Amino acid sequence: MLVLSNDEVARLLSIEECMAALEPMYRDYAKGEALLSPRVDNIAPSSHPGGYYGFKHMGGTWPARRIQALRINSDTVTHPLVAGKPRRVKQPLAPGRDGKGRWVGLVLLFSTQTGALLAMFPDGVMQRMRVGAASGLALKYLAREDAATLALIGTGWQAGAQLMAARAVRRFKEVRVFSPRAESRAAFASQYENITLSDSVETCVKGADVILAATSSMVRVIDPQWLRPGMHIGCIKSQEIDGEVLERCDRVFVHNRQQAKQINNVMPGTPHAAAKAEEHGWWKEPGRSYPDLGELLTGKAPARRDDAEITCFANNVGTGLQFAAAGAAVLEKARELRIGTELPDDWFSEDVHP
Amino acid sequence: MLVLSNDEVARLLSIEECMAALEPMYRDYAKGEALLSPRVDNIAPSSHPGGYYGFKHMGGTWPARRIQALRINSDTVTHPLVAGKPRRVKQPLAPGRDGKGRWVGLVLLFSTQTGALLAMFPDGVMQRMRVGAASGLALKYLAREDAATLALIGTGWQAGAQLMAARAVRRFKEVRVFSPRAESRAAFASQYENITLSDSVETCVKGADVILAATSSMVRVIDPQWLRPGMHIGCIKSQEIDGEVLERCDRVFVHNRQQAKQINNVMPGTPHAAAKAEEHGWWKEPGRSYPDLGELLTGKAPARRDDAEITCFANNVGTGLQFAAAGAAVLEKARELRIGTELPDDWFSEDVHP
Repeated sequence: MLVLSNDEVARLLSIEECMAALEPMYRDYAKGEALLSPRVDNIAPSSHPGGYYGFKHMGGTWPARRIQALRINSDTVTHPLVAGKPRRVKQPLAPGRDGKGRWVGLVLLFSTQTGALLAMFPDGVMQRMRVGAASGLALKYLAREDAATLALIGTGWQAGAQLMAARAVRRFKEVRVFSPRAESRAAFASQYENITLSDSVETCVKGADVILAATSSMVRVIDPQWLRPGMHIGCIKSQEIDGEVLERCDRVFVHNRQQAKQINNVMPGTPHAAAKAEEHGWWKEPGRSYPDLGELLTGKAPARRDDAEITCFANNVGTGLQFAAAGAAVLEKARELRIGTELPDDWFSEDVHP
Repeated sequence: MLVLSNDEVARLLSIEECMAALEPMYRDYAKGEALLSPRVDNIAPSSHPGGYYGFKHMGGTWPARRIQALRINSDTVTHPLVAGKPRRVKQPLAPGRDGKGRWVGLVLLFSTQTGALLAMFPDGVMQRMRVGAASGLALKYLAREDAATLALIGTGWQAGAQLMAARAVRRFKEVRVFSPRAESRAAFASQYENITLSDSVETCVKGADVILAATSSMVRVIDPQWLRPGMHIGCIKSQEIDGEVLERCDRVFVHNRQQAKQINNVMPGTPHAAAKAEEHGWWKEPGRSYPDLGELLTGKAPARRDDAEITCFANNVGTGLQFAAAGAAVLEKARELRIGTELPDDWFSEDVHP
């Protein structure tokens, strides 16, 4: 059983490799040859002020690569106001060696052939790459070939992967970046080359061919007034857009229609507002049925038809299958390059019929 | 993060300790103060002859003990005929150090306070104990106080825990044991004291006050003709009894009503019969609604009312909450006695917001 760190996963998985790993999985999924299990969230009261405990897991089975993945998150979640708007923030409360708190997200990979637990690693780096890769694949099939200006809203950890993925599939002449706090923008600029910082969101999106949102906002961040013919927009959290935005788009894709049917187990007594916020979503409204990325990649649902259409990729909620596909690629390369820490297989299997 | 082996879990958890750990959890669950997540089974084609791949997981959140459990099984399942009857058999295909194949079942325990992964261990010993403990708790509240004769059908791994649990709550004068193969009976007799082996099932059950079935049969093993006033019957797999048996009982309890709503994700192309067999069950028939163990232990549903009633505890399907409760007890004792292998916490947490 191979233990990998986030740093090792980062060395083993570029955004291009992640997109290459995911694309055939989406095709198999659309053909009924890969299986996901619903995302299940257990939400319970916590002693943390204003917070609740959230335990989330999602699985994916991909027989072609003989891989089963399970991704697990165990978090204390709070909904603080940042710059006047509510955000969803996971609190790092797990003990770390340096006294700093840490987050807990894990990916487990199993063999569908032997059943064995093959690998375990934190989910952070892969989570970010798979979100970026899904956006990138959507962008590749939806944005105009000659898209020249990218507006990126958000300067966090996820925003960087959105930028890398977008640049992997289109040659942007200009990339503009906005987030409410100047210090966040500056920090982002120190990590990525050839970007322009905008001090207002209006400056950022003006004349853009592609707008990507990568925020932790619980309310709309893309204004329907910004949409112009030929644009492509993308967002991660469903809350970043709303019905008004969707109605201005000609072609909308979600990441995965099945996964949108999330199972929320909320324990009575959990802070009401928090639990409610988890349940919110336009994708549950009647009539809001859109094809998903697998249908886009297999041509079951048509991509952009002309240069005037406005296209949208929304609700980029994760699936266990993404971790199966990216995980299989990482595991193969880790074994080849002998990266990671091997633990005895016998610790994670047994000689009694369970 | 503490890694425990099955042997270590066995040292840390007697059947009495397991029952003591589970009882308050059932009460909390019945009061809405503990949460389970549905059992999810992903079922997909496998290259193993006549088999399919089954990935199962179930979670449980118990805030009173600040514990979250996830139990995972990753198996190749076959349905061979044994003594003319179909059985559900998990194939041990994971590589073992000694060249023998192994099974893959794991329990992960998390802190609901910090989110941290606290422990990981194979599920086999605890799985057996929690099945026994649930049967034992049902027996304690349902069987006649003066029950003197126990008939046990089955001589496998689970049957032993049923025997220990039954003996923990009633003083049986006679215990009779049956299984179709003489060598299995003899092997069982070498492990447990003061039991009588029966060479036919009719001899085994004749005049018994309690009948417990612990088999891997996919068809009925308890005959409705055997039931007499004052008896208590119990079984683990729902298939061991059927509607005819249930109709002869005055008082029926299932282990967990919510958990019976299992989510089966079956991939197209999986061997038909196998996948169908997983879906079968009288508990899904209309009108077959019975109270569960939590309702029994809290008095929400009445226990045995007189010495003439026939009582039944059926469909002892596991819940993640059992692993949370037994796991919290094992973990506490393991830390106290310094048992197990500690791995660096940093391997299973991260410094990036996932």
